[in-house]
Amino acid sequence: MSADHSTPFIAIEGIDGVGKSTQVRLLAERLEAEGRSTLTVREPGGTELGEQVRRILLESSTPLEVEAELLLFMASRVQLYEERIGPALRDGRVVISDRFHLSSIVYQGIARGLGEQRAGQIVWGVLGDRRPSINVVLTLPLADCVARLGGEGDRFESQPEVLEGVWHGFQESEGLPGDRIVRIDGAGPPEEVAARVYEGLSDALR
Amino acid sequence: MSADHSTPFIAIEGIDGVGKSTQVRLLAERLEAEGRSTLTVREPGGTELGEQVRRILLESSTPLEVEAELLLFMASRVQLYEERIGPALRDGRVVISDRFHLSSIVYQGIARGLGEQRAGQIVWGVLGDRRPSINVVLTLPLADCVARLGGEGDRFESQPEVLEGVWHGFQESEGLPGDRIVRIDGAGPPEEVAARVYEGLSDALR
Repeated sequence: MSADHSTPFIAIEGIDGVGKSTQVRLLAERLEAEGRSTLTVREPGGTELGEQVRRILLESSTPLEVEAELLLFMASRVQLYEERIGPALRDGRVVISDRFHLSSIVYQGIARGLGEQRAGQIVWGVLGDRRPSINVVLTLPLADCVARLGGEGDRFESQPEVLEGVWHGFQESEGLPGDRIVRIDGAGPPEEVAARVYEGLSDALR
Repeated sequence: MSADHSTPFIAIEGIDGVGKSTQVRLLAERLEAEGRSTLTVREPGGTELGEQVRRILLESSTPLEVEAELLLFMASRVQLYEERIGPALRDGRVVISDRFHLSSIVYQGIARGLGEQRAGQIVWGVLGDRRPSINVVLTLPLADCVARLGGEGDRFESQPEVLEGVWHGFQESEGLPGDRIVRIDGAGPPEEVAARVYEGLSDALR
């Protein structure tokens, strides 16, 4: 359960369509160009278990209580941390994850009705310190998120009220005690957003 | 998260091969013959999610941290409780489950090295009161368990030291605070065991 955060562990967070995976890639490229070794992962996924869980969560129509959904994410997350993130951090590689625990607090806790406190309690009880040293939340006005998704959200965002809950959650949630959250304007060309993300991470990357 | 235990919720527990599913069936038959309505379920399984999780856990060769494994069981368990067990109890049906949370404490906590306390902490944090009103543990001498399994244990029991840990766990674990555990000799013809199980449950069934 021990975490190793002498090396930065960065989560890029935000609503679907906000540009997370592009920013993960651009950040990794920049850090690699600076001579740093990186590992990029995505959630859920990134391990064999994670991909199996991803299929249950995103592609199937299995009836799923929100609490069971959260526990599937947690299983995938623990596996990802122990199998890949922890070892990479111990090797001195900067880890950049497309989503991490903040997404669970926002999606299952805030948007889908489990309650931020209850979701936080489960996430905290399972992960302990195995959390990002910094969480970058990419933000966009709600109307832009709706336009980008164009009604194409997955099971998590296909209802307008859920989408709105997710949006508010990412605007406002402080995550768990001790979480460091930086909100970055996600509007404009990807390279401009990348420059803002890099700037926002300057402390964490030193 | 609230539990409804005015109706009995019975878990039949014990090592693989000890005769749990036979006893679940015999108990349900006897209660139905007495005019009581019952629901029998098995773990992991019993719901669409549970069967998907069961495939990951028992049939695949996916690398799996013991903690991730526990969380998959917990996802399946919460779904099973909310989708089937809770509603049945509210309808006044006696629920008989082939395994429940005690198995997680024994398998992942004691036998597979996560630690009884750590497993208990996760199980407790997730389930709260959504636990059986009584846990019947069927017991057999270790040598008989080894003989019955005949080297055919699944991924959970294929190593002798794990099998021995499971055996000790079921002999000794007290489960979570508030758990009621009754150990019943599982030796002899199924009908004799069934009579002992029924006798052991007389308080709970009144």
